[in-house]
Amino acid sequence: MCDTTISPFLPIAIIATGKALPAIKLTSTELDARFKKPAGWAQKHSGIEYRHHARADERQSTLAAQALRDALDRGNVNPDSIDLLLSASGVQEQALPCTAALVLGQAGLRPGTPGFDINATCLGFLAALRVAASLLNTSSYRRIAIVASDLASRGIDWDDTESSLIFGDGAAAAIVERGDGARGIEGYRLNTWPEGATYCEIRAGGTRRTPRTGAEPSDFLFHMEGRRVLRLGTVATDDLLAGLFKETGLSFNDMDVVVPHQPSPLGMRYLAERVPDDRIVNIYATHGNQVAASIPTALHEAFVTGRAQPGRRLMLIGTAGGISVGALILKL
Amino acid sequence: MCDTTISPFLPIAIIATGKALPAIKLTSTELDARFKKPAGWAQKHSGIEYRHHARADERQSTLAAQALRDALDRGNVNPDSIDLLLSASGVQEQALPCTAALVLGQAGLRPGTPGFDINATCLGFLAALRVAASLLNTSSYRRIAIVASDLASRGIDWDDTESSLIFGDGAAAAIVERGDGARGIEGYRLNTWPEGATYCEIRAGGTRRTPRTGAEPSDFLFHMEGRRVLRLGTVATDDLLAGLFKETGLSFNDMDVVVPHQPSPLGMRYLAERVPDDRIVNIYATHGNQVAASIPTALHEAFVTGRAQPGRRLMLIGTAGGISVGALILKL
Repeated sequence: MCDTTISPFLPIAIIATGKALPAIKLTSTELDARFKKPAGWAQKHSGIEYRHHARADERQSTLAAQALRDALDRGNVNPDSIDLLLSASGVQEQALPCTAALVLGQAGLRPGTPGFDINATCLGFLAALRVAASLLNTSSYRRIAIVASDLASRGIDWDDTESSLIFGDGAAAAIVERGDGARGIEGYRLNTWPEGATYCEIRAGGTRRTPRTGAEPSDFLFHMEGRRVLRLGTVATDDLLAGLFKETGLSFNDMDVVVPHQPSPLGMRYLAERVPDDRIVNIYATHGNQVAASIPTALHEAFVTGRAQPGRRLMLIGTAGGISVGALILKL
Repeated sequence: MCDTTISPFLPIAIIATGKALPAIKLTSTELDARFKKPAGWAQKHSGIEYRHHARADERQSTLAAQALRDALDRGNVNPDSIDLLLSASGVQEQALPCTAALVLGQAGLRPGTPGFDINATCLGFLAALRVAASLLNTSSYRRIAIVASDLASRGIDWDDTESSLIFGDGAAAAIVERGDGARGIEGYRLNTWPEGATYCEIRAGGTRRTPRTGAEPSDFLFHMEGRRVLRLGTVATDDLLAGLFKETGLSFNDMDVVVPHQPSPLGMRYLAERVPDDRIVNIYATHGNQVAASIPTALHEAFVTGRAQPGRRLMLIGTAGGISVGALILKL
């Protein structure tokens, strides 16, 4: 084992990406009607043209498996060659077992393939990619699949106009290998600020609020203090980027492509003020905020549109419930 | 970066462990009365003398923070020196955000310390320890805290005699560093067999069954097909150990201490038939099945009783909802 702290560069190569969207395409025009508002109201307030929502009979793990199959197909990757599945979701499919166990079989991976979940709320894919890189460099795993999925629509509080307009469902996946050593992670930071732990939450679903302990239907819905998230997220991202750019000697100018989480128009303003528009992958208007699925869905978009190219430098960046902020710089 | 596949040895050192138990000590004698059974019935059927259950006002993250503080105190470790918190639970405290975000502040870690969850159901601590080892060898993180917590009592189906008797609540933690290179992981395997994904489950709590999609109170309770878990777990563990022992050239005879998950008397019979009793850490009679907290609580027991000593070889092993089986061999 060598001491890798001399060079922070950590080899990893993304060999394929994929995505999946559920059945219902919900336009903002339809939401105007639902909320009895004039035409254009929902689009103006959400910045979204349409988002996809799952039907009641659609399962999160099925959508995740579709995204993973899409990545396998696009990359012509044999499912039997996957050594590990990492699943990332802001909200799991069910309290137990982990969502990875529910995805594995549906995705057609070899029985016995290990799987577990990594949960960093909206930054789960980013954390999982960093973990995968470490595992690929220090284990016998040769090829790891990462899949992120969320059905945010299940937790929408339709009485809360602000948050009900912005969410879309979806799943996306990436297949990664160690690669040839030239491609990899040039920098990574994740910071969690627990003073904001209650700013984004669904209070039920775990051990805290259950029907037995008096959970109300509203406890199963998503609650957000949008302004506080924005304020803390901005300060925390400033701090994180200052450290990351100092450590790596890089700046936004060195990023060919920036793949952000897609929280809301206000939430994306931070980047718009610092990075030229043509370098930002913005899929918000046609996807909405897909929680943990946003970053890998936007990453997939970067690949299929040819913006992510070998040799280019790409940044993943976002804010998550926690409150966590994170960024990862990748040499493709 | 060097190719670490030549030697599978991965440096990591456990520098401190800790645990926490909630307020209520529930004896099997009390359960005899609750179920209107003769004296000795609950102990005979569960193999448990007593287990701890949380009061309705106790929180999982608070218990986790107590366990982490216990580890910090015992190891005389400055909380500010923790670079990352990994939280492992079979069931989270709430659907969103991740439990790590709820533990960080209560444990008094430095604001900004990153935290995320690793969920491999009952094997979360084992997966997190393996991830921590990879991160410590391929990142700037110097010291990682791992905490596992579960309040299984919140999901007990009291109408199911078999599963209602066996669960206890708890939390346990370990602080790890890379160490001097002499201590570390000699072998690790995790396998998931999704044919058993429905053998242990809590169907609600995520996106699948919610009050809006018609979840019933029973969907929030733990369901287990005990015999199927045992059958699949046995076959899968045989397969896993055959591979692990072949790869490492080791056998049960080389293990000084075996720290198993503590699922049930039947679930622990597998080891009892293969390993001398005095090498197995068995805390089941006084803790019950603590889900993801079982393995680190038993590991803590191994340390405080002096059975885990520098230079000794220790195995963590268990079966989890998923169904996953896992084992990790550690040179202490």
